Amino acid sequence: MYERFMKRAIELAKKGLGRVNPNPPVGAVVVKEGRIISEGFHPYFGGPHAERVAIESAKRKGEDLTGTTLVVTLEPCDHHGKTPPCTDLIIESGIKKVVIGMRDPNPVSGSGVEKLKKHGIEVVEGVLEEEVKKLCEFFITYVTENRPFIALKYASTLDGKIADAEGNSKWITQDLRHKAHEMRNVYSAVLVGARTVLKDDPRLTCRLKGGRNPTRVILDRRGILSGGSYRVFEDNARVIVFTENKEAKYPVHVEKVLNDCSVGGILKVLYEKGVDSVLVEGGSEVLGEFLEYADVVFAFYSTKVFGEGLDVFSGYRSSVSDPPRFRIVRSEHTDTELFLEMRPCSRG
Amino acid sequence: MYERFMKRAIELAKKGLGRVNPNPPVGAVVVKEGRIISEGFHPYFGGPHAERVAIESAKRKGEDLTGTTLVVTLEPCDHHGKTPPCTDLIIESGIKKVVIGMRDPNPVSGSGVEKLKKHGIEVVEGVLEEEVKKLCEFFITYVTENRPFIALKYASTLDGKIADAEGNSKWITQDLRHKAHEMRNVYSAVLVGARTVLKDDPRLTCRLKGGRNPTRVILDRRGILSGGSYRVFEDNARVIVFTENKEAKYPVHVEKVLNDCSVGGILKVLYEKGVDSVLVEGGSEVLGEFLEYADVVFAFYSTKVFGEGLDVFSGYRSSVSDPPRFRIVRSEHTDTELFLEMRPCSRG
Repeated sequence: MYERFMKRAIELAKKGLGRVNPNPPVGAVVVKEGRIISEGFHPYFGGPHAERVAIESAKRKGEDLTGTTLVVTLEPCDHHGKTPPCTDLIIESGIKKVVIGMRDPNPVSGSGVEKLKKHGIEVVEGVLEEEVKKLCEFFITYVTENRPFIALKYASTLDGKIADAEGNSKWITQDLRHKAHEMRNVYSAVLVGARTVLKDDPRLTCRLKGGRNPTRVILDRRGILSGGSYRVFEDNARVIVFTENKEAKYPVHVEKVLNDCSVGGILKVLYEKGVDSVLVEGGSEVLGEFLEYADVVFAFYSTKVFGEGLDVFSGYRSSVSDPPRFRIVRSEHTDTELFLEMRPCSRG
Repeated sequence: MYERFMKRAIELAKKGLGRVNPNPPVGAVVVKEGRIISEGFHPYFGGPHAERVAIESAKRKGEDLTGTTLVVTLEPCDHHGKTPPCTDLIIESGIKKVVIGMRDPNPVSGSGVEKLKKHGIEVVEGVLEEEVKKLCEFFITYVTENRPFIALKYASTLDGKIADAEGNSKWITQDLRHKAHEMRNVYSAVLVGARTVLKDDPRLTCRLKGGRNPTRVILDRRGILSGGSYRVFEDNARVIVFTENKEAKYPVHVEKVLNDCSVGGILKVLYEKGVDSVLVEGGSEVLGEFLEYADVVFAFYSTKVFGEGLDVFSGYRSSVSDPPRFRIVRSEHTDTELFLEMRPCSRG
């Protein structure tokens, strides 16, 4: 019976995607006599929580909250973080029932559910839980595995090439390019290798109207970008460069990380820097390095054939007996392009 | 108003797929007072035509055909081939209206439509014409372009590999394998290169219940299969071997063709031998050779990644500026496999 309210709360939560990281996106609605009387969502990192926004909005309208139901995607927090605990606010408001999608997986959040129950508030749990988990997957991975959520994105021909025999690669796919920008609008960071920067000089920004730019993470093991001027170094977004080269020099606003440049080493630093999600965009060798770490793979295929050319996962090697396997969770196509969203078949 | 009858005629015609080649599959129904009173289809090469089967079936039931309508996928023939002209039979029967999907594209068939009209029979043309053209695509290509219709079939990983770095390749896809056998049941011939025979020793038969085996066409340019014993040489189906090697020896029932082994040279001979359709199944170099001749591509993807390995179109080379392009006309997937049917974007 709470599904339709939870659906609305999820919709609201999504407005915070890409803005609240490494917090989870959260949405909430206050329901009175079967009708939504106010709504709220967590708008940006450090901003007010969804519950507070919804409750205060109702109060501003002069609504009496006594006996109402609060439907919120995530268990309300019971700790003093950047904002006071939502539990206290709920208890004071007169709300008599709280419906949540999932418990807060973050060990530091405290148990909001227990606190509410102790104060005589009925709590209904697990409404549209799978959808809420999907919504919060960056956050769940970040706080339970202490690493960013990892997506791989590639655009290849039917025969798995990301460049032709001459090394030309731009605009392999076009119709579905907007999806790539939607991803950049939501992922906290985009990661590419130094050779991609040298070759394509990409901006790695989000070109959607109203979009926000992700942090750019560059893997420049040997420091080949040292001293150079590239679009990814422009100061319209945060830049983090990983290198093994002590001498490497980058513009002053670039965060240089001296590191072994292993996938594990990179993920550890990104976690510490508050990056909850990384979209690995290439090139070929970088995709190969991150393949076995991927939580999701976004594959764009253009219905072209290059034959000889650069492999999408060059340098990577598995065998027919035990290759990485994925399951297709979404597939869309136009006349000449195909998009697949895939998840690993088995993961610890 | 004739669509539903034509749909039934198309359904009937399909029962002859793979059995009537290089004739077209044809289906027919006799309609009396809005109701189908008899049905027929062309069952096998040299067998009775669909019109004859339907008309004789009605007569056997004691039906008076005067004033009835014949709905048939293809224009009735007006020539003496393996059977007498259908036009004469229709005219004698008392049928007053004939509804067809498309005109017979074969120049030798004569104009059935004109003959019928001359005898006062009303003719309605073009009902579900696109579907009928699709149904007859082998035949149309065969009689208008004097070559077989060409399909490419491959099964690859997400990264376009048909074998891993050790050369292992069997069973890349499994869930959708039945589709491959449905193709072998319909295409007149299956073509593979000699190295595929050496490596996998495939049967190239159709393992569907009630299926029929396609002609096996082997491209053995240098004669590496000479004197050998392979499953494709078993005498449960016709075998044609193309070779440049005069000395090459094959089992006695094998049709050896000494030829330049170019795609053009192969297609010419297959045409002359009455092969209206070829399913090119591999290996990698053969797929590359036939790619630009393909009328349709059937791609099976398994959601695995091999990284290093054998390319689906090895030895083939195009460029980013002008690669072969296809449009997706059908797409299906299971959790871990994807099937695409594609047609070339532009073809003369």
